Order: sequence, then structure tokens, then C-alpha cells
Amino acid sequence: MSEFDEDTAVRPVGDGAWAATLTERWNALGGTPNGGYLLGVCLRALGGALPHPDPLVASATYLRRAAPGPALVTTEVLRAGRTVATGQARLEQDGRPVVHAVATYASLDTATGLTKELGAPPDLPAPEDCVDPVAGQSVPGVTIVERYETRHPRAPGWFQGRPSGDPAHTFWIRLSDGRDADLVSLAALVDAAAPVVLELGVAGSATLQLTVHLRARPAPGWLACRVTTRHVIGGFHEEDFEVWDSHGHLVAQSRQLALIP
Amino acid sequence: MSEFDEDTAVRPVGDGAWAATLTERWNALGGTPNGGYLLGVCLRALGGALPHPDPLVASATYLRRAAPGPALVTTEVLRAGRTVATGQARLEQDGRPVVHAVATYASLDTATGLTKELGAPPDLPAPEDCVDPVAGQSVPGVTIVERYETRHPRAPGWFQGRPSGDPAHTFWIRLSDGRDADLVSLAALVDAAAPVVLELGVAGSATLQLTVHLRARPAPGWLACRVTTRHVIGGFHEEDFEVWDSHGHLVAQSRQLALIP
Repeated sequence: MSEFDEDTAVRPVGDGAWAATLTERWNALGGTPNGGYLLGVCLRALGGALPHPDPLVASATYLRRAAPGPALVTTEVLRAGRTVATGQARLEQDGRPVVHAVATYASLDTATGLTKELGAPPDLPAPEDCVDPVAGQSVPGVTIVERYETRHPRAPGWFQGRPSGDPAHTFWIRLSDGRDADLVSLAALVDAAAPVVLELGVAGSATLQLTVHLRARPAPGWLACRVTTRHVIGGFHEEDFEVWDSHGHLVAQSRQLALIP
Repeated sequence: MSEFDEDTAVRPVGDGAWAATLTERWNALGGTPNGGYLLGVCLRALGGALPHPDPLVASATYLRRAAPGPALVTTEVLRAGRTVATGQARLEQDGRPVVHAVATYASLDTATGLTKELGAPPDLPAPEDCVDPVAGQSVPGVTIVERYETRHPRAPGWFQGRPSGDPAHTFWIRLSDGRDADLVSLAALVDAAAPVVLELGVAGSATLQLTVHLRARPAPGWLACRVTTRHVIGGFHEEDFEVWDSHGHLVAQSRQLALIP
């Protein structure tokens, strides 16, 4: 069983209630479980509550800092139709709400309409020709760094202590335990990288809300990512994230609203 | 009182319950009230339920077709903190859920952090040098066309029966009753224009989920918009929408997931 599957597992404990354990393996800066990981846990619960297999779109609002340890997820079906179903999940710890998520599920097998791709995957050298800035080093407290492998055309400027001033980056990523991505792990992955606004010389950024569109089941292998922030206004900023699979197909697209503290 | 304020008004009718009347003035193709308008109604209710004045981010999931007539909105505060508060709104008609919305409010006056704008408003001729393709004509059943005025560098290809093949467009917009935009009306406006995928020769598109970031209070006057779709996969597509105010500031940014029927 993969680390991701193990750490996002939920156990039904009653009518629409699911017990989860947030592990210490997905901690972001500050020792708090990463927001994408928390969304992954919510989607595991919603996947159990809704009649259709594939999350198409999911939104998470982060209400307070999570902590490693037990969590209770409560799901509610908002509407279950023949082809599409929507539910909400509330993740709480010690009786206090931590994450609120809403997601719509369907079967991507029924998505047989028009296809027209006007974008393109990032133009990256092969992963073996890229650098791994972390290269097996650990970052104290930031355990999520160990859960993903990344390869970059060059190390990010901020990582070398020279923020580029341009919050835009392209790179490869995969889970480091060898598990290939699926739709649920993609929803976590779009929030897994360091905030690209670090290229502005800021110390960090906290996600308020994350919305991800899951567009196709990813092919196995490395995933090519494009992340960018264009509009930082009064400390608030969007972060846009695209994920393209090893066959060159867009598989996920996310946008988050975040705040530079 | 403006048409928008009148038609999105809600009346408290009990603990977290709000009565609304969906009018026939915001109908999209098919005679169903437009999704942005429905989100506007939900935000009016949430504005009454939450302690902070400004919506920062709002997500709406459209569960079934709305119809002009009475609606009941039920709000729930998910968390009310000192600087940020999040709530959800359920809009139902005849006891059946129609829209589920989640929004986070704060005060934009407290947004005093870093500002760095790396984007730019669309490069548009002045509104008076643009064309108004509709020019006072009405489109039978599509009453929302009468609620907004738009000005375009040239009439959209699809409007002339010659879809361009490129779903990207820039144009000016304002409410036609002369009401200047605020944050709530911006949340409606990002869904007010015809779907840009009409440039692919399709007949229409239905919004499944809409997320809007509200970034600054807009200056009075015309608003410059940029709308684009890049990824149509199996009938599903995103639509990205930016709104820039008359002072050249980004004021709203939205993305929706929609399905070409």
C-alpha cells in the first residue's frame, strides 16, 4: 500500500462519518499537514459517500491549521443524480472545523464530448536531464518534501537564495514511493510544491481556498507541472497550477487563493 | 434601487433562512436564471450572515436548473474568525437544492500586504470606439442580455455566424441600469457573458462549478474583461475570466468548469 493511500485512508464510523488519522508525513512549513493532503482525505471520504467514481471538481476552504493526529470527516450528499453527484465534507479535529470541501463526482468514461486542446505541456528537458535540488536531503519539519520527487530544468531561484522576481516555474513531479497518480492524488499534488511566490522573496504563503479541476485519468510516470502567480494584491494572490501526464495530456488544473502573512 | 440590488435582495425569515425571489430578468438560454445571478443571491444572504463585509472568494456548485420564482436560501457559518469568516449557502426551490455556495469574507481594508501586478488589463480601444453587437436588440428569452451593456473591439465571430475557432475574447461590460460594480455584482458578472466556447461552433455550455476571487473594490465605470477557454476534454472545459476596472486594476478573477451538452 502506498504512503498516500495509507495516510489518506478513512474508516466509516456511522452515518456519513469517517475516521482518519493525519500523519506527520505530509507536513508543510510550520509542521502543519499540507492542504492538498487534507483535501485528499476529504475526497477519500466523499468517494465512499457518492455513487460515481471520479472527482471532477473539488474546492476546499481551510478554516484553521490542522495538526497531525486523529480527524473526523463528516460527509453529506448534496445531490446524487444519474450522471453527476455532489457532496460536502467537513474535516474536524477536537470538535473544531478545520477544512470544508465540496466536490462533484461523475464517471470520466461518460465524458465523450468534444475535445479541443489549445494549451501545451511545459517544454521541459527529460527528467534525467533535470536537477533534483533536494536530492535526498531532508528539510527539518517539512516532511512533505520526502513524499514527492521533483526534477527541475534548474533549481528555483528562491531555493538558491536568489529569488527571481518572477513567480512562474515548470518542473516534473511524482510521488516518491513509486505510486502512480490517480485523480485523488492529483488533487493533493496541485498543492504539494513550495508556493511559487517564494520567487518574490517572501517567506511563505497560506492557502485560504483551493479549487481543482480533474480532467483526465493520468498515464503512469512523471507529471509535468506549470505553476504561476500573476496578481499579488495587498498580500492576497492566486496560484495557478497545471498538471500534464507523461502522454502530454492535461490531467488537472487548479487555482488557489492564498495570503502572504 | 438598481435592478441587480432589487433582484438579489433577500429577506431574513428565521434562523439562517432567507427568502428570495428569482426574477425573469436574468435568464440565460433556455429561460433559466443565470448562474452568476444565483451566486449573487447567495452572497447577499451570506453577507447578512457573516461578520465581515467583503467576499474574497466564492464557489458555487449548480445542482439543478433554477426557475424564476421564490427561492429559500439557508446559510450556515462554518467559521467566523477575527479577520476572516466562511459560510455556506444552500439555495433551494420547492424543497429541492438548486445551488450550493461557499464563500469566505474579510475586510479588504485590512489587505495591506505586498502588491505586485504581473498581468495587464486587456488592450482595448475606448468603449466609444468599440461596437455594441446587440445594440438594444433583445434576444427572445435571454433577458440577461438586457441587464448588461457590452462593447467589443469587433463583434464576436460566433455572433456573426462565423465561430473563430479560438475561444478567447476581450471586451467592456457594465450593468445597463447604470449601477457601478461592487464585489457582489462582480461575482455575478464573471458568469454574465455568453460562453466563449461558442467560438468553437458549439450551441452552448452549462456551468457545473464556478469559483471567483474578488481582489479589489472596483472603481466606477466600464470594466475590461478577458475570457478564455484552453482545455476542452470530452465535453468538459474550464472558462477563465478576468475583470479589470477603469483604473486598470484587476478586481476579479474566476474559473468555471462547464459541460458542452
